[in-house]
Amino acid sequence: MIDFIFEMWFVSLAGIIALIFAGLLSIWLLRQPKGDEKVSDLSDRIYRGAMTFLDREYKPLIIFVIIIAVVLYVTEIHDEAVLAFVSGAFCSALAGNIGMRIATKSNARAAVGAKEEIGKGLKIGFSSGAVMGMTVVGLALIGLSAISHWLWAEPGKLADVIVGFGFGASSIAIFARVAGGIYTKSADMGADLVGKVEEKIPEDDPRNPAVIADNVGDNVGDVAGMGADLFESYAGSIISAIAIGVGGTAIGIPESDAMLYPLLLASFGIFASIIATSLVRPGKGSDIGALHNALNRGVFGSAILMIIFAYFLTDSFLGKLEPFYAMVSGLAAGIAIGLASEYFTESRFRPTRSIAKSSKTGPATNIVSGFSIGMSSTLIPVISICIAIGLSWHFANLYGIPIAAVGMLSTLGMTLATDTYGPVNDNAAGIAEMGEMGSEVRTRAEKLDAVGNTTAAIGKGFAIGSAALTAVALFSAYIASVPGLTTSQLSINEPMVMIGLFIGGLLTFIFSALTMSAVGRGASSIVKEVRRQFKEIQGLLEGEAEPQSKRCVAISTNTALKNMILPGGLAVVTPVLVGLWSAQALGGLLAGAIVTGLLLAITLANAGGAWDNAKKYIEEGNLGGKGSDAHAAAVTGDTVGDPFKDTSGPSLNILIKLMAMISLLFVPLF
Amino acid sequence: MIDFIFEMWFVSLAGIIALIFAGLLSIWLLRQPKGDEKVSDLSDRIYRGAMTFLDREYKPLIIFVIIIAVVLYVTEIHDEAVLAFVSGAFCSALAGNIGMRIATKSNARAAVGAKEEIGKGLKIGFSSGAVMGMTVVGLALIGLSAISHWLWAEPGKLADVIVGFGFGASSIAIFARVAGGIYTKSADMGADLVGKVEEKIPEDDPRNPAVIADNVGDNVGDVAGMGADLFESYAGSIISAIAIGVGGTAIGIPESDAMLYPLLLASFGIFASIIATSLVRPGKGSDIGALHNALNRGVFGSAILMIIFAYFLTDSFLGKLEPFYAMVSGLAAGIAIGLASEYFTESRFRPTRSIAKSSKTGPATNIVSGFSIGMSSTLIPVISICIAIGLSWHFANLYGIPIAAVGMLSTLGMTLATDTYGPVNDNAAGIAEMGEMGSEVRTRAEKLDAVGNTTAAIGKGFAIGSAALTAVALFSAYIASVPGLTTSQLSINEPMVMIGLFIGGLLTFIFSALTMSAVGRGASSIVKEVRRQFKEIQGLLEGEAEPQSKRCVAISTNTALKNMILPGGLAVVTPVLVGLWSAQALGGLLAGAIVTGLLLAITLANAGGAWDNAKKYIEEGNLGGKGSDAHAAAVTGDTVGDPFKDTSGPSLNILIKLMAMISLLFVPLF
Repeated sequence: MIDFIFEMWFVSLAGIIALIFAGLLSIWLLRQPKGDEKVSDLSDRIYRGAMTFLDREYKPLIIFVIIIAVVLYVTEIHDEAVLAFVSGAFCSALAGNIGMRIATKSNARAAVGAKEEIGKGLKIGFSSGAVMGMTVVGLALIGLSAISHWLWAEPGKLADVIVGFGFGASSIAIFARVAGGIYTKSADMGADLVGKVEEKIPEDDPRNPAVIADNVGDNVGDVAGMGADLFESYAGSIISAIAIGVGGTAIGIPESDAMLYPLLLASFGIFASIIATSLVRPGKGSDIGALHNALNRGVFGSAILMIIFAYFLTDSFLGKLEPFYAMVSGLAAGIAIGLASEYFTESRFRPTRSIAKSSKTGPATNIVSGFSIGMSSTLIPVISICIAIGLSWHFANLYGIPIAAVGMLSTLGMTLATDTYGPVNDNAAGIAEMGEMGSEVRTRAEKLDAVGNTTAAIGKGFAIGSAALTAVALFSAYIASVPGLTTSQLSINEPMVMIGLFIGGLLTFIFSALTMSAVGRGASSIVKEVRRQFKEIQGLLEGEAEPQSKRCVAISTNTALKNMILPGGLAVVTPVLVGLWSAQALGGLLAGAIVTGLLLAITLANAGGAWDNAKKYIEEGNLGGKGSDAHAAAVTGDTVGDPFKDTSGPSLNILIKLMAMISLLFVPLF
Repeated sequence: MIDFIFEMWFVSLAGIIALIFAGLLSIWLLRQPKGDEKVSDLSDRIYRGAMTFLDREYKPLIIFVIIIAVVLYVTEIHDEAVLAFVSGAFCSALAGNIGMRIATKSNARAAVGAKEEIGKGLKIGFSSGAVMGMTVVGLALIGLSAISHWLWAEPGKLADVIVGFGFGASSIAIFARVAGGIYTKSADMGADLVGKVEEKIPEDDPRNPAVIADNVGDNVGDVAGMGADLFESYAGSIISAIAIGVGGTAIGIPESDAMLYPLLLASFGIFASIIATSLVRPGKGSDIGALHNALNRGVFGSAILMIIFAYFLTDSFLGKLEPFYAMVSGLAAGIAIGLASEYFTESRFRPTRSIAKSSKTGPATNIVSGFSIGMSSTLIPVISICIAIGLSWHFANLYGIPIAAVGMLSTLGMTLATDTYGPVNDNAAGIAEMGEMGSEVRTRAEKLDAVGNTTAAIGKGFAIGSAALTAVALFSAYIASVPGLTTSQLSINEPMVMIGLFIGGLLTFIFSALTMSAVGRGASSIVKEVRRQFKEIQGLLEGEAEPQSKRCVAISTNTALKNMILPGGLAVVTPVLVGLWSAQALGGLLAGAIVTGLLLAITLANAGGAWDNAKKYIEEGNLGGKGSDAHAAAVTGDTVGDPFKDTSGPSLNILIKLMAMISLLFVPLF
């Protein structure tokens, strides 16, 4: 017991240290110069737009949380789950809020930093990302350890209740991801369709009324949305390990050890991430390769450190290394998926080049080629996931799968930092353009942005891979916890299971269709508004009048909030309804959704990334360069890819985890 | 026994009657006037192109059939399966050959007929389709009844051996569908990309060197490919009912009755189809609605007749009506899926209109909107399949599922006739244009073509729905026949099953990517060749020189044959390899492939159909009409949709059936 108390305080302490580290970084960031009045004003407008969005988003979310809390209170056996649910929702929202505040306070500072020196820009962007990363892991670990402290004496109850925390986090995540994704891509597509395509003005041109909304969108979608997504994955992987560890594991690890181990792994992951941040030191040069290496040192450094820590932890704490091997297989799968995404989406490699080449015969061949490359790109990730499932099961049976997911996510503090770095420097590039900071700064900011795109590929690989593993683990926990459900009832040739598989697969398609069409509608509202402004505001195109940016911000906000309800609601309600009808069918539903969701998510993410980079490749002067027909075709592909990669694709990650979480939580009803 | 002999002869007789009916129709068709020299020459060129393709396709197919026959001989327990395999392959190839011969002999005759009277054009096109339909069902039923005659004394062996027939048919089907789909869309995209988009010359313009290849493609893909596909579905549904009926059914139908019943159902289906062809009598008017009604009377007439026949057959032969209800639920699901495809792909309805509207903001929004509508369109078909599975299981347990599939396909003689009608009249429209038969004939032929597009939607619904049901039935037969495989080993939370599900889903994505990218490559070779001819052949664009059509035919043929090997091989080899590794994983693979394959096939088919009709809607003068920016955007969508709806989508139907068939056949190895 003394051991346990010591260890649990150690976990909480790791969470607190993560938050302290985030606080110190924030103080340093806010001390950096904010730039001249124009620049600082742009940053303020983005900040205010982002905050307005969050404020408005909170209202429906609070109502949703209250409704679910009441439902849980009425139906659940454990009243404690209600509190856990609310805490999960609160922590997730808080992490997103803090991360986005800092990101929107850092964008101008990153541009100003880049003016001084390109490495300074990288440092500011990365630090801002690290605040997000550390806040996410810190809050998650504090929340999970608090619940564990509280209910440690009743492990069965703890396992049930802690799922409530995960469900709270998932609920916020699904709405944040969907709304953020719709917001960012409505604004982006709308801005591009009129600005770049019709009026032929550059990206981020201050005359374009949708540019502020576009920059707000980067934060709302890629910072707050991504943060909530990974908060949920991170918490979910640990929760599924705890849920499966109840009663001990098949490989002879006693209950209390099995439940503590994932928390300890996560704690060491925090230390590995904090230490590795010191490796992100860009040199004096402005070489893209050097900048890239600085970030990669952080990612791979933290992974290597984590493997070392985990080896000693596993050996000393569990006395057997099998779970360590399971963890390493998860981590390796994450890296393999990340590298595969890099291969399929970067213009250094054949796939993206072939999309660029097919642009020469027009937009149709560009689209077909991108879509088929997106589908091909599922091969390595899916095989990696299969190998990770097979190996982790081989080493540690059912317990191995969540441990593999925990392994993949243990260094999230670092991977999320490199992810969030992207939108901050994307914003910095926008501010450099709009704030007329000169072409030198603009070029530097764009270089920094390009570096972010690459590291984001690896980050996305981790997000997708961990979502699949976490969902598989939660799904297995669900199956294990339904009383009276035998494995032969879950045979794939049972008609109920077959029907469940079909419905699960169907859900991912309908969900993607809903999010995609919402972006289409949002973009077309923005297009109409921007066209109107260019027509009605005298002197706007000549740069003599100010655009009414706020109206585009309002349109994006409204579209996003209105359109998050149906897909979000579908994700929450369907599993419960199907479960009430048949626990067998719900099992099938989860399996079907995980399989097709993973395939669709990878296809959409990589097709989108490849289209984006094929366009950039042509813009670098290849195949006719900017202004050629090939470029026009590639711009079409890039625009199609926007909702694929930033709205529908990433939302699927949450969908599959959320449905598994909800099923596990509502087991007592089925 | 006397009863049995009588009944089995009845089945064979039904098959023979179908062939005689097809023969009589062919004689009538060949007596119709062929048109003037120019027209008849065009038809000959299409005929020769199509036959050259078939001749060249046979070589690799024969090699493939020999290899598989040797493998079967070496590994199988029943030597008889080798003979059944070769017969299945031969019958499928023969049906495709006859159907395509007649179709390419009828295209000019349909145009000449339409010149006389529009109803005559419809009659010729429909009769040509009916030859195909009757040949397919006739040959399938003769083959199946011959094997049944031969091995009736040993039901277990019969069930094993008859699967060989299905596998032979599937093998031809996968190559025919993939090669045909790649051929037709390479030629079509290539012809359009240079002709319509770059040179701004009309569809089917005789100056375009790829137009003959495009018209050959309609036959190779939509006639021979579709015929082989449905030959396989038809035989497959009956075979799965026989395989599941061995040993009797759970609802108390004795073995011999359970095995005969699907054959008898199919026989009555032939009579229903033949009788219903007499209902296809277009009146004197040229009203599109009237033409449409004529075909619909045939389809719905045969379905109603079939329900009546089946009711009495089931009642008198089995003495219980449960299988009849299962059959009706399959037929109803087929019709529901067909009507849903109609709703999602016709410009009378909201979805296609919304795609047309989104073309106003350019190709990107057109693509996103079409893609999201394709994904939404999975809802009704998947729910219909789930209901059909649930109901047919409820009424007749496992035996109900193949009976539902048999029900859906029993009137294939008729549905395939209305399907094949489409490409014949599409060709007729092309010949009317190229043969300068005058705008009146061209307009009439286009009207007839438009009617075909609508009925094809229902036909496609049957093809997709029956593929899913047949695959589910074959899959269940596979599970039931693996010795020592318990249902609890097939639980969805077994890691091997989970891995299988992932690999199965993965295969459908990779398969689609391969077929799609083959079309992209083929189209770009055609584009280069057509551009070269326009550049190098003096006076081609002015209509003073002849294009070198043969070169485009050769390019399409080569691309199609070269690119059918990998996807076709993948479909055959993967299940065997996975099965050798783990029979559990193979079960998961089949389930995963069926679920994602169905979703993907519907998405691709309906997105493609909707894009096509959105373009036509704009061409009718809406939203700016031909030549507007919206039209250009809609043409992009249509071109993207080509490989979606005519190559990758339909090939998936066969993929899922073939993999289930192969698994069932190779059970003794696993």
